[in-house]
Amino acid sequence: MKADPRSRVVVVGGGFGGLQAVRHLRGARADITLIDRRNFHLFQPLAYQVATGALAAGEIATPLRSIFKRRRDVRVVMGEVAAIDVERRELTVAAGDAATPLLVPYDALIVAAGAHYSYFGREDWRRLAPELKTLEGALDIRRRILAAFEAAELEDDPAARAAWLTFAIVGAGPTGVEMAGQIAEIARDTLRRDFRTIDPRAARVLLVDQGERVLPAYPPSLSAKAARALERLGVTPLMSWGFVGIDGAGVTLRHGDGREQRVAARTVVWAAGVEASPLAAKLAAATGAELDAAGRVTVERDLSLPGHPEILALGDMVRVRGAGGAPLALPGVAPVAMQQGRYAAGVVRARARGEGPPPPFHYRDKGDVATIGRRRAVADLRGLHLSGTPAWAFWLALHLVYLVGFENRLLVLTRWAFSFFTRGRGARLIAGAPPRAEPAGLESEHAFKAPLRSVAREKGAVA
Amino acid sequence: MKADPRSRVVVVGGGFGGLQAVRHLRGARADITLIDRRNFHLFQPLAYQVATGALAAGEIATPLRSIFKRRRDVRVVMGEVAAIDVERRELTVAAGDAATPLLVPYDALIVAAGAHYSYFGREDWRRLAPELKTLEGALDIRRRILAAFEAAELEDDPAARAAWLTFAIVGAGPTGVEMAGQIAEIARDTLRRDFRTIDPRAARVLLVDQGERVLPAYPPSLSAKAARALERLGVTPLMSWGFVGIDGAGVTLRHGDGREQRVAARTVVWAAGVEASPLAAKLAAATGAELDAAGRVTVERDLSLPGHPEILALGDMVRVRGAGGAPLALPGVAPVAMQQGRYAAGVVRARARGEGPPPPFHYRDKGDVATIGRRRAVADLRGLHLSGTPAWAFWLALHLVYLVGFENRLLVLTRWAFSFFTRGRGARLIAGAPPRAEPAGLESEHAFKAPLRSVAREKGAVA
Repeated sequence: MKADPRSRVVVVGGGFGGLQAVRHLRGARADITLIDRRNFHLFQPLAYQVATGALAAGEIATPLRSIFKRRRDVRVVMGEVAAIDVERRELTVAAGDAATPLLVPYDALIVAAGAHYSYFGREDWRRLAPELKTLEGALDIRRRILAAFEAAELEDDPAARAAWLTFAIVGAGPTGVEMAGQIAEIARDTLRRDFRTIDPRAARVLLVDQGERVLPAYPPSLSAKAARALERLGVTPLMSWGFVGIDGAGVTLRHGDGREQRVAARTVVWAAGVEASPLAAKLAAATGAELDAAGRVTVERDLSLPGHPEILALGDMVRVRGAGGAPLALPGVAPVAMQQGRYAAGVVRARARGEGPPPPFHYRDKGDVATIGRRRAVADLRGLHLSGTPAWAFWLALHLVYLVGFENRLLVLTRWAFSFFTRGRGARLIAGAPPRAEPAGLESEHAFKAPLRSVAREKGAVA
Repeated sequence: MKADPRSRVVVVGGGFGGLQAVRHLRGARADITLIDRRNFHLFQPLAYQVATGALAAGEIATPLRSIFKRRRDVRVVMGEVAAIDVERRELTVAAGDAATPLLVPYDALIVAAGAHYSYFGREDWRRLAPELKTLEGALDIRRRILAAFEAAELEDDPAARAAWLTFAIVGAGPTGVEMAGQIAEIARDTLRRDFRTIDPRAARVLLVDQGERVLPAYPPSLSAKAARALERLGVTPLMSWGFVGIDGAGVTLRHGDGREQRVAARTVVWAAGVEASPLAAKLAAATGAELDAAGRVTVERDLSLPGHPEILALGDMVRVRGAGGAPLALPGVAPVAMQQGRYAAGVVRARARGEGPPPPFHYRDKGDVATIGRRRAVADLRGLHLSGTPAWAFWLALHLVYLVGFENRLLVLTRWAFSFFTRGRGARLIAGAPPRAEPAGLESEHAFKAPLRSVAREKGAVA
């Protein structure tokens, strides 16, 4: 990289990692271009609250342009990276509604394009079981959950009604646990008085995971507490069960010991697996870096690509080479991406000043917190284990602090206060898509025509 | 209608009229069924604020079930009325995701299914110029407006850029005027610092109407004030101009004197004409009532259908027979629907008690108020003319008071306070649909696959 008067730094992805990188490049004598397919930063850790009607979409998303409107050194481009030419140091960007693709040259490139959930090779399940990674996915899930109660209310056949009132959540990580807890709370509290034929409390919420316990990244004692809290809310954890079929009318599960079971469940929510952004594969192909089964590219200890110190990649689209040389996948949580984003900005700044690279990236794990429901949460803070109301209060404070935008913080606080005192949920509209068809029908086409890339990350950790 | 212990009252439409009818049937010893295609009541007078990013969708919509959750006498059915059998006194309702249609018998029926904008027979324009009547329409318009600025930012060709920065609003009634003013404010204030290549203030906003003046329902002096306020904001009113073509790249206009003009405008918003719900035609066919060119059915002076005192219809899907016998179309505003809804409830109650019908319906017109922008509005309150800040403050207070739900009032107040002091707009996400294609492409299919029935009304009047 030349020590030009002003270097051109391109950041791909406006998630937690990309945002931190741009923020920490302030005053670096660089012209920064931030590229994202969407015009907003999504606070993905709260996407499940949009999916359950507790928050509105806009309250967890902030326009990138307004975040950086006072940074004259930052240009935001809404578009999708179609190609990376590492020799010419140039990106080709397909830009939304504009006719011709844009060529964006760089002196330094930071790629933080994230990951989404993987469907274990069953892409056809995506339309039957939307994922909780994107805003569209969250809105689609909200529509399905609310429409399922509506359909149950009008259904005479008890078996068909039970299928509408059965919800299967795939994946018992923080997102799946939070989602299951929220659906149970909706059924028990929010919708309690809303219907005349059904009793929403009859809803069954299944939390399905191939692993042996919920929240596998947490200490076993907290996993046990979380499982008990879920059961008290009315959630049925089905551990050691995997999915072998989803068809819209129900799901087929297979236990680790070979047993199979069919469950009539109309609504399935996906929160399992990880599949890196396709940009990871593009970087690997261009630089000869390793690519793992989840599509993550292996970066050096300073987050650079092998032989290309001017290209850095980070977040849950990468594995980082460890001290021993073996690549390590860090947890797919916001704090990893944020720390890596800040680190990457430091690398670019050091190089621009002609200095050598800083010491290798080291993740400072401050702990994890996951919420299950009203005054139910678990936290693991470097050995300090919390549960119940203290963990829940900690979770609330943490998420409010990290939410981008003062207006959003105030709106979310208002919503949460209302939810707490009234057990209601304000954002309960069924809108934006036609009702889903019978099992074989096409549903919510629009949500899936858009390529499912997300710059947001897994959730529930302490930044 | 039998004087049964409990009569069965069915209300179709959860807009302003239907809501008032259900509210005023409280304690009437009736089992009430409220049917709507959507699960929410939309506060349509603020839809344009959703379209311009000032408010989020959920803030102007309230779930019908939560409005009536404490009314054990009210059952909400989310579904679409497919047929009305006036002999058997029974509705057939196609209910969302449930497989079999529902049969709903009634002793009294109140139909308040509303109207939407008409495209003057050019239904193909609907996908090129979304209407501001539904929540999906408002969200689609928001996406288009914001995406147009994004595309302009990336466009090199000055002519192409100008086309992205030209916005045409069809219809100079209150909705069109408010919409034009808001787009001008976005360009001047909200987005001012957001872009690096374009100056959003270069945007052109055209307000097109075949009539001779803006706000034709207002006194000429207030029309003139509104036109001047619009011009000061940067809006160009094109009066006496009609649309003869829309093709996505631009519009062709024809003046009353025959001149034609082509304007390159990528974004067109529709707020003109009126077309009643198809239920009006079904009622006319079943009862022999008159139907006018806008699809409105003529009801008697007590809002009943001829020969069917048990069926009442109201709102902007009807014309009401006047004292002289000639049918009269009342303004398509919320207060008309609300007063008629209350009146219809009174008719049903009187009949249930075995009393004769109340005196004929009479609309009490308390006045109109339309807002143009920040501290710019006009109000006509039974001869008292206001403009500027007083009219604007009156408009704000009025809309907050009539917004359904205390939580929504608080959220909207928070948003407005932020907008006022920061000139920002919080709800600026481009989400929910793929970017629009080139002129010939299909755009936002999902928003138009759903039949466009709306129970909401024209706007801007004092309830």
